[in-house]
Amino acid sequence: MIIAMKPGVLRAEAEEFARKLEKQGVTVDFSEGATQTVLGLVGDTTAIDEEALQANHLVERVIRVQEPYKRANRMFHPNDTALELPGADGGKAKIGGGNFAVIAGPCSVESREQIVSVARAVKNEGASFLRGGAFKPRTSPYSFQGLGDEGLSLLLEAKKETGLPIVTELMEISQIEHFGNVDVIQVGARNMQNFSLLKELGRCGKPILLKRGMASTMTELLMAAEYIMAGGNDRVILCERGVRGFDTFTRNILDLGIVPVLKKKSHLPVIVDPSHATGVAWMVPAMSKAAVACGADGIIVEVHNDPEHALCDGEQSITPPDFAALMVSIRKYIALEGKTI
Amino acid sequence: MIIAMKPGVLRAEAEEFARKLEKQGVTVDFSEGATQTVLGLVGDTTAIDEEALQANHLVERVIRVQEPYKRANRMFHPNDTALELPGADGGKAKIGGGNFAVIAGPCSVESREQIVSVARAVKNEGASFLRGGAFKPRTSPYSFQGLGDEGLSLLLEAKKETGLPIVTELMEISQIEHFGNVDVIQVGARNMQNFSLLKELGRCGKPILLKRGMASTMTELLMAAEYIMAGGNDRVILCERGVRGFDTFTRNILDLGIVPVLKKKSHLPVIVDPSHATGVAWMVPAMSKAAVACGADGIIVEVHNDPEHALCDGEQSITPPDFAALMVSIRKYIALEGKTI
Amino acid sequence: MIIAMKPGVLRAEAEEFARKLEKQGVTVDFSEGATQTVLGLVGDTTAIDEEALQANHLVERVIRVQEPYKRANRMFHPNDTALELPGADGGKAKIGGGNFAVIAGPCSVESREQIVSVARAVKNEGASFLRGGAFKPRTSPYSFQGLGDEGLSLLLEAKKETGLPIVTELMEISQIEHFGNVDVIQVGARNMQNFSLLKELGRCGKPILLKRGMASTMTELLMAAEYIMAGGNDRVILCERGVRGFDTFTRNILDLGIVPVLKKKSHLPVIVDPSHATGVAWMVPAMSKAAVACGADGIIVEVHNDPEHALCDGEQSITPPDFAALMVSIRKYIALEGKTI
Amino acid sequence: MIIAMKPGVLRAEAEEFARKLEKQGVTVDFSEGATQTVLGLVGDTTAIDEEALQANHLVERVIRVQEPYKRANRMFHPNDTALELPGADGGKAKIGGGNFAVIAGPCSVESREQIVSVARAVKNEGASFLRGGAFKPRTSPYSFQGLGDEGLSLLLEAKKETGLPIVTELMEISQIEHFGNVDVIQVGARNMQNFSLLKELGRCGKPILLKRGMASTMTELLMAAEYIMAGGNDRVILCERGVRGFDTFTRNILDLGIVPVLKKKSHLPVIVDPSHATGVAWMVPAMSKAAVACGADGIIVEVHNDPEHALCDGEQSITPPDFAALMVSIRKYIALEGKTI
Repeated sequence: MIIAMKPGVLRAEAEEFARKLEKQGVTVDFSEGATQTVLGLVGDTTAIDEEALQANHLVERVIRVQEPYKRANRMFHPNDTALELPGADGGKAKIGGGNFAVIAGPCSVESREQIVSVARAVKNEGASFLRGGAFKPRTSPYSFQGLGDEGLSLLLEAKKETGLPIVTELMEISQIEHFGNVDVIQVGARNMQNFSLLKELGRCGKPILLKRGMASTMTELLMAAEYIMAGGNDRVILCERGVRGFDTFTRNILDLGIVPVLKKKSHLPVIVDPSHATGVAWMVPAMSKAAVACGADGIIVEVHNDPEHALCDGEQSITPPDFAALMVSIRKYIALEGKTI
Repeated sequence: MIIAMKPGVLRAEAEEFARKLEKQGVTVDFSEGATQTVLGLVGDTTAIDEEALQANHLVERVIRVQEPYKRANRMFHPNDTALELPGADGGKAKIGGGNFAVIAGPCSVESREQIVSVARAVKNEGASFLRGGAFKPRTSPYSFQGLGDEGLSLLLEAKKETGLPIVTELMEISQIEHFGNVDVIQVGARNMQNFSLLKELGRCGKPILLKRGMASTMTELLMAAEYIMAGGNDRVILCERGVRGFDTFTRNILDLGIVPVLKKKSHLPVIVDPSHATGVAWMVPAMSKAAVACGADGIIVEVHNDPEHALCDGEQSITPPDFAALMVSIRKYIALEGKTI
Repeated sequence: MIIAMKPGVLRAEAEEFARKLEKQGVTVDFSEGATQTVLGLVGDTTAIDEEALQANHLVERVIRVQEPYKRANRMFHPNDTALELPGADGGKAKIGGGNFAVIAGPCSVESREQIVSVARAVKNEGASFLRGGAFKPRTSPYSFQGLGDEGLSLLLEAKKETGLPIVTELMEISQIEHFGNVDVIQVGARNMQNFSLLKELGRCGKPILLKRGMASTMTELLMAAEYIMAGGNDRVILCERGVRGFDTFTRNILDLGIVPVLKKKSHLPVIVDPSHATGVAWMVPAMSKAAVACGADGIIVEVHNDPEHALCDGEQSITPPDFAALMVSIRKYIALEGKTI
Repeated sequence: MIIAMKPGVLRAEAEEFARKLEKQGVTVDFSEGATQTVLGLVGDTTAIDEEALQANHLVERVIRVQEPYKRANRMFHPNDTALELPGADGGKAKIGGGNFAVIAGPCSVESREQIVSVARAVKNEGASFLRGGAFKPRTSPYSFQGLGDEGLSLLLEAKKETGLPIVTELMEISQIEHFGNVDVIQVGARNMQNFSLLKELGRCGKPILLKRGMASTMTELLMAAEYIMAGGNDRVILCERGVRGFDTFTRNILDLGIVPVLKKKSHLPVIVDPSHATGVAWMVPAMSKAAVACGADGIIVEVHNDPEHALCDGEQSITPPDFAALMVSIRKYIALEGKTI
C-alpha cells in the first residue's frame, strides 16, 4: 500500500502517522520529495482500511498495490483448484484444473416429467451437472416464485434417474437445512453481496457456485468468494453472467474479458452463463464457444423441453436438440483448448 | 400491454394465441396491418409474464404500457404517503406529504459516547431521525463488521437520551427479532433484491427505508417496494444513494433525476443519501441542497464526531459543526420548496 | 507521479530507469521497501506518458498524483474565470464569477418567426443568451439536419431584434468561417473528443461552450478544454448534459455531482443542460433548480413556441409560459446561492 | 411503428392525428381498446421522427418495430457483404463472406524502420492488412499526436515493401486529400458520430473501418454506417472495440455479444479490436480466439517490435513473436468456424 501525503505535511507529522500505521503490523518506508512525502507500507495490508486512511487530513491518496483477497488469490495458491463430485454412471463430475464442465437444465423446476426429461436429454449429450431452480428470485412479487421444497424433491428424483449432481439456488440462510442433498449451491447475482449468507455458506461444506453481481467489480466478486473461503469453504466456482449495460440488444453485457483476468488473479474455477447474459436462446451457442475460447472452465446453460410454455426465462432457454448441436460444436473448441469434458 | 406479432402470422394463429391470453383475465383487441398484427391487452396485466410471451414463436415484441407495480403506483393512490413517528421532545418525526426529514448519524455505532454525542449534536440542529449501523455490510470479510447487538443497545440508549427515532440496517431475516425497538428498518443497496428479506419485512409492521441497488432501474426499485407492500406493509421510504458509473471522481453517480420521476410514478416518500453517493464529505452540502431543490422528501447524511478515526466511511462523514452549517443552509431551500422541517 | 516497480526489480535497474525519467525534466525520489521499490517523480509530469511507463516490464503500477491539465486547473489559476459579452439592451451577458447565465431557445432554428418570437419571449423573462441550432447532429441521416447557413442568418436576425448574444453549435472545421458573427460556439457531446476541431477552436478567439461527451470522464472533459486552451483560447464554458446510463426513465443520467468537482478542480464556468439530460420537458424545472443548488454557473434550456410541431427534440422543450414560471422559481435559488442574474 | 395514444383520447382526435401521419406516406391501422387506442403504422417509417411524435400531447408511447436503418439492414440485403482488395504477393485481401481478415501493426507509425519491420513480420505470419496511425487522437494535447503526413508516407513505403493494403485513421475532412493511396480509412471511436465526417466518407469511394463509440448503442453504430452508405459508399466494416464500463481490470468491456447480433441485423463485415478493448497485451490472444468463436469476420491487433519504447499504447501491443503464436492458435479456430484466412 502506498500513501501519498498532502503537500506541506511536515516530516514530524508524517512520522507520527507512520508510527500509528506500524501498530497495525506493517513497516513503513519514507520517500520524501520536493513537494510531498510518500509512504510505502510493507507487510500484510489485507486488514488495513483504505477508506479510513483516506479520511485522514494528512493523506492525499491511498493506493493499494497488494490485492485485498488472500485465500482466493493465485499468488498464495499457484495451482488451479479443481472440483470433483460423484457423477453420472459411476463417473466423476469435474470442474477446473483442465476439466470443462457443462451445467444444463431448466430455469425453474416445473414438474417431475419436465425435470426428468430435461435431465436425461442433457445427460445424453454430455452435461455433467443438472441445474434447475426451486427457489426463484423474481423482479415481481406477482411472478411465479418457484416450487420451493417440492422443486428440490423433484431435482433429487432427476438426480436419482440420471446420476447427475444437482446445482440449485439458495436464497436465504434458513433454506440451508433443506439443501442437504444438493450437490452445488448457487448464489445468485442479486445475493453476491449478501454477506450474512456468504458467511453461512463458508461453514456449509458444499461447493458454491457464486454468480457475479449485476454491477460488481472483479475485486468485489473475489471478495465475495473470500467471505465464503474465510469461513473454511474453499470450493467456490466463480460465474460471469453479464453485467448491466446501456444498450438493450442483449439483456446484459457478457463481460468475457473477466475470464482470463480471474484465471490469472485467482486459482478458482471460472464458468460462464450465456443464457442469462444474453437473454435470448439463439445467441447461446456463439457465446458458449467464445466462453470456451477465452479460457472458461465451464458453462451453465438453460435447456427447456418446451421454452414457449416455460414458467420463467423461456426466451433464453434452448431446446434439447439445440443443446445437442451446441455440445457437438463446443467439444471441438474444448479440445483445442486442451481441456477434457 | 401491446404485443406485435411476427410478420406472416396467420389470423387464426393470432386468435388462438389471444384466446390463451384471455384466460389470464384480460381482453384482447386486434389491429391487423398490412404486414403484421398487433394485439392490445386490456385489463390488469400485472401478473402477465412478459418474458414468457416474448419466448413465443409467434411474437415479435411485447411492450408493457401499464406499470407492473400497483401498491406503489400513484395511479391507484393519488395522495402522498406520509409517515409519522413519535419524535424528540414529545413531537413527531415526519417524512413525506410536505414534511422534509433529516436523518443523521454515524456510519457505524462505535461506542456509547460516540453515538450519544452525535445524536445530541444532530438533534440540536434539527435532525428528526438518528441513523447508525450496528450490522455493517462490508466488501471485505477482514473489515470491521459492526458491533451487532451491542450496537443496537447503544442506539437505544441514544434514543432514550434524545428521543430521536432510530434508523438502522438489517442484513438478514433472523435479525428481525432483535429489531423490536428499532423505529425504521433500513434495507441496504446490496439487499434491495433480497426478495426473501423483502417478503419478511412485508410482515413486520415497521417503516422500511429501502435503498436503491447499485445498478437497479427505477422499476426494479418500485418492484422491490411492491414486494414489501404486497405483504401488507405500506410504509416504505425510497432512497436514492448513487448508482455505479464509469468515472471515479465520486464513488457513485448521484442520480437525482430519479427523484421527480419517483414522485410522479409513486406516492411513497423519496429521500437522498449524498454521503454514500459521493463518498466525500465536502460534497455533501452541495448535493443535499440539490436534493431538496429537485423535490426530495428528506436526506440521510453521515455525521461523525471524529471522521479521521471512524471505523468505517470516515471519508464521507461530516462533523457536527459542518452538519450545523448544512442545516442552516438547507432550511432556506426547504422553505422555498414549501416544505416543513 | 508515483511508480511502483515490480517486486524483484534490482536497485541498479530501478536507477537506470530513473535516469531515463530524469531526462524528461523531473527528479526522482526512491523509496526502497522490503518487497518493492517505489519512485516518486517531482516536477512537471504533464507531458509524461503514463501508458508508455505502464508498458515497461519493470513497472507494476503508475499513479498520477498531479492532474494532467494545467491551463484548466484551478491550482494554477485560483480565481474564477468570468465571461462577459455585450448583451441585450446595452447591458452585459455574463457567466461565471458569481454571475448566473440562462441560455435559452429552441433546439433547431426553424423559421424567422419561430426564432424571433422565442428570442423575445426568453429575453423578456431574463435569459441572457439565445441558443438555437443551425447545424444539427442527428442519429439518423434521414432526420432533419438543420437549416444550415440560413439558420445562422435567422439567428442573427433574432440577435438584432433582441440584443441577445447567440450560442450555436459548430460541427466541423470548415464551418468556422460562417460563424464570424456568432457569439459563443458550442461543441456538442459527440464532438467533445474531436481533437482536430478543438485545436482549431483554440485559435478562433471566441468563447466555446464545451459539452461533456456521453461517457466522458471528468478528466477527459478537462483535457478537451485543455486542447482549446493550449491553443491560446481561455474562454471555455464546461457543460454537463447527462451521461449514458443503464435505465430509461430519463434519456441520460444528469450527473450533477460533477458540478462541484469541476468548480473545485477548475476555474472555468460550469453550466448544466437539463433538457438534453432528461429528455422530457416536465423535468426541466426540478433539475434546473437542482443545478443552481449544487453550484452551477448557468443553465441551457430548450424553449419552443410549439413543441408538438418542433422539427427536433420537441419532447424536451418547454413553452414560453413554462419558461417564465421556471425563471420566477430559479431566481429565488440563484439569490440563495448569492449569485447575480 | 406502433403508437399508443393516451387514455381518454377521443376517436376523432386520434383520426385527425392519423391523417397527418398518412401524409408522411404510411397507412395507419386502428386498435381501439377499452382504455386506449393503439395505432399501427404500415409502410416505410424510416424517416418518421419518433421524438417529434413522442412530444405530441395525444401520444403515450411510440414503439419502433422496423429498424431505422435500411442500407445496413440485412432484411433488405440478405447476403453478406464481402470486401476484396489487392493484397500481398499478387493475392487478395478479403474480409467478410466467409473470409477472416487479420489487420495488424503498430498503434502509431514511428519510423521507417519500425513500420517496415513490423509490416514484414505480420505479413509473414498471415496478416492481410497493415494498420498504423499517422494522425492520432490523444486525450492530452501534450501527448505525441502522430507523425501526420510523414506517417502516411512511411505507411506507403511499408505497403510497397510488403504488398499489404493499409488501414489508417482519418481525423478530419481536410485530411481526405492526403489519403488517396490509403486502402481502408478508419473512423475512430471518438468520431463515430462525427456526422459531417461520415457524410464526406460516403462520397470517398474507399472502404471505411468504422469503430463503435465508447458508449454507442448497436443502433447508433448501424446508423453511423447508414450515414456513410446513404452517400453511396456501401463498403463499411463495423468494429467492436470495447465500451466504457464501471470496472478497471480492463480498459473497456469487450462487448462480444454485439458480434452475432450485428451479423444478424446487418450484412456488413464485423471485426473486433482486442487490443484497445482490453488495453493489455497478455489478454489479446484469449480475446482474439473468443472473437473468432462468436462469429467475427476479422480482428485488428496492435503489434510493435519494441512495446516498451512505443510512443503510444505500448502496454497493449504484442510483439512479433507473440503475434506469430497468436496466428498459429487462431487459425485452428478460424478453421472450426469454416472460414478462410
